[in-house]
Amino acid sequence: MSGSTPVITFTTDYGLRDYFVAAMKGVILSLNPDAKLVDISNLIPPQDIFTGAFTLSRAWSYFPSGTVHIAIVDPGVGDAHKGLAVDAGGHFFVAPDNGILTYVLNEHPGFEAYEITAEHYYRKPVSPDFHARDIFSPIAAWISRGVPLIKIGSALQNPFRLQLPGIQKVKDTLIQGQILAVDRFGSLITNLKPDDVPHAYKILAGHREITGIHKTYQEGAPGEVFVVPGSTGYLEIAVKDGSAASVIKIKAGSPIGVVFV
Amino acid sequence: MSGSTPVITFTTDYGLRDYFVAAMKGVILSLNPDAKLVDISNLIPPQDIFTGAFTLSRAWSYFPSGTVHIAIVDPGVGDAHKGLAVDAGGHFFVAPDNGILTYVLNEHPGFEAYEITAEHYYRKPVSPDFHARDIFSPIAAWISRGVPLIKIGSALQNPFRLQLPGIQKVKDTLIQGQILAVDRFGSLITNLKPDDVPHAYKILAGHREITGIHKTYQEGAPGEVFVVPGSTGYLEIAVKDGSAASVIKIKAGSPIGVVFV
Amino acid sequence: MSGSTPVITFTTDYGLRDYFVAAMKGVILSLNPDAKLVDISNLIPPQDIFTGAFTLSRAWSYFPSGTVHIAIVDPGVGDAHKGLAVDAGGHFFVAPDNGILTYVLNEHPGFEAYEITAEHYYRKPVSPDFHARDIFSPIAAWISRGVPLIKIGSALQNPFRLQLPGIQKVKDTLIQGQILAVDRFGSLITNLKPDDVPHAYKILAGHREITGIHKTYQEGAPGEVFVVPGSTGYLEIAVKDGSAASVIKIKAGSPIGVVFV
Repeated sequence: MSGSTPVITFTTDYGLRDYFVAAMKGVILSLNPDAKLVDISNLIPPQDIFTGAFTLSRAWSYFPSGTVHIAIVDPGVGDAHKGLAVDAGGHFFVAPDNGILTYVLNEHPGFEAYEITAEHYYRKPVSPDFHARDIFSPIAAWISRGVPLIKIGSALQNPFRLQLPGIQKVKDTLIQGQILAVDRFGSLITNLKPDDVPHAYKILAGHREITGIHKTYQEGAPGEVFVVPGSTGYLEIAVKDGSAASVIKIKAGSPIGVVFV
Repeated sequence: MSGSTPVITFTTDYGLRDYFVAAMKGVILSLNPDAKLVDISNLIPPQDIFTGAFTLSRAWSYFPSGTVHIAIVDPGVGDAHKGLAVDAGGHFFVAPDNGILTYVLNEHPGFEAYEITAEHYYRKPVSPDFHARDIFSPIAAWISRGVPLIKIGSALQNPFRLQLPGIQKVKDTLIQGQILAVDRFGSLITNLKPDDVPHAYKILAGHREITGIHKTYQEGAPGEVFVVPGSTGYLEIAVKDGSAASVIKIKAGSPIGVVFV
Repeated sequence: MSGSTPVITFTTDYGLRDYFVAAMKGVILSLNPDAKLVDISNLIPPQDIFTGAFTLSRAWSYFPSGTVHIAIVDPGVGDAHKGLAVDAGGHFFVAPDNGILTYVLNEHPGFEAYEITAEHYYRKPVSPDFHARDIFSPIAAWISRGVPLIKIGSALQNPFRLQLPGIQKVKDTLIQGQILAVDRFGSLITNLKPDDVPHAYKILAGHREITGIHKTYQEGAPGEVFVVPGSTGYLEIAVKDGSAASVIKIKAGSPIGVVFV
């Protein structure tokens, strides 16, 4: 960290109305007044670890090396879950061991994970129900000050990971994928990458057959439902200046079919 | 302030959609470019001073000593209210004199309060309807630069305070409390602290009798409505992975009963 | 910029739930770790360039000279629009050439505008659909580090501007204006400035005749619908402690009449 500005990001389901995230930020600034605090999203739906993992995965890598990313969704307060501190490619992560780091770990097989145990870094007394404030925040602050992870806890071999939706080959001309997320504009983000569809294809989604396959969003005609490579790295189903989610009544988790034509 | 990074927090009912909070932040950064700006919440319901006071009270003390907290809800624009600058235990507060600092003042009886009168610090011309931008923001910026409160205005003995909901003893085996707030997860935060219920008890809330009294949120069974000490310092009524507010149809301000059994 | 803290603001329709704005901030901090990032609003309604332009126009001038303002609404991703870098009175703006800077340009006729073409500053590869992250954010970061606009692209004479709603004289005693915006409190912001109504007048809005003309919001009686000079610089239609938008069923874009009496 030496010499650079320490950045700490927040991905939580705490919302923006209550005092939760502010209390975390206060704790962090009390320990590291130089920390630069950036929200990734605090509007992850309550307890939706899958959406938290996806949202974090699409944002963290754009931050400077050395950034500490706090990710708290459904932290299994009390005694259900361990706390994790992870180094993945020079980025640090502080999170409950509940799968919210699944994409990060899958994409960085060389990660180093530690179970947080160094109680002398905790805020005392530790509330049974707000580890984000009393454990994860001070740990993140100390990491941002340069404390090495080896001093935070003990090495952990197999952090918990979510089973991410895969792509299934049904037959030679048909594969099945899934909607990963729906963004603010109603675009449906699939789990298909451009390399997964090397041949001409159409997509079956809800009751629709989507045959418009475009290279850019801008190529869509008004009102047309079409497929386009998204900025997430995945194919997206979109309607230009409109909401694909309103036209096709499907949501995160829904299956889709790809028919090679 | 010398040597440390000045932090300024925001607790307002201005929302996140409009330009209000941004204009305040612009004014502050123009006067103190080093200020670190942190939102506590800008989603206090419009004119809800009580919720503003509660939200601020649960967050401010985690920030570093010397932090300046701006709290603006229903500022009685025009001529209705005085502006306050307060030092409470080394934290500074800038707010209208409408009760939004009630918890702060009650918890720090040794506070020093000043009525803001030093017009040479104001942004000119002062809009009649946006004192937050033209008075409170520049005053906060100057305090964050080290201007002592004595230069901001004249000492004020009795800032206005809200009558906070008390706990009433109805009879030896029954006391009455109140719901202070409902958080994003639908947990109902009561005005009861653990010390208020030294004996075995059950809680009457809405049409429910709540007999599940747990030490941690995690102890709750699926679907169970239970009472648990919250991270706010108050007892909370919660449903694990669910919303107590959806199950028990009560809200902030509703009375609850405690029956000692 | 030398010596001062670089500030970068955000006015977008990207929302607060997804990863869009965070990815932009990550890109910026990777290029300029000293940048201070402030949201003006990320809750501009999707594709609503007019509201984006208005919101930006009410906030940007309060920031320090040298601030870089990023404004992204409906950026016409793909190939539809040019990117702009503008210097208006010592403030910098980075935005698509779609009219979102209309107020800025109208109020600063001496602006200097450049079409962004310096690809060596872009993030590579450039996503066809997220120029905000791959072009506008790095350009803003480099400007905040002091790169002069002349190095960003080629001078552009006539950036696109929206046709802003004007005031029409219908007859000597009647002019027609328009609602520009509705704020969080339900106040209706008109396009009339106090100078536009030098004589005694009443306002026709929806099915209402509004005869209460006040100098400050505070003068309004409980429940009264009245007109008051707002902090935006425009006349506003308001209800004290209530919502004018709920009482008068009109919205941004609706016409209003002014009758001189």
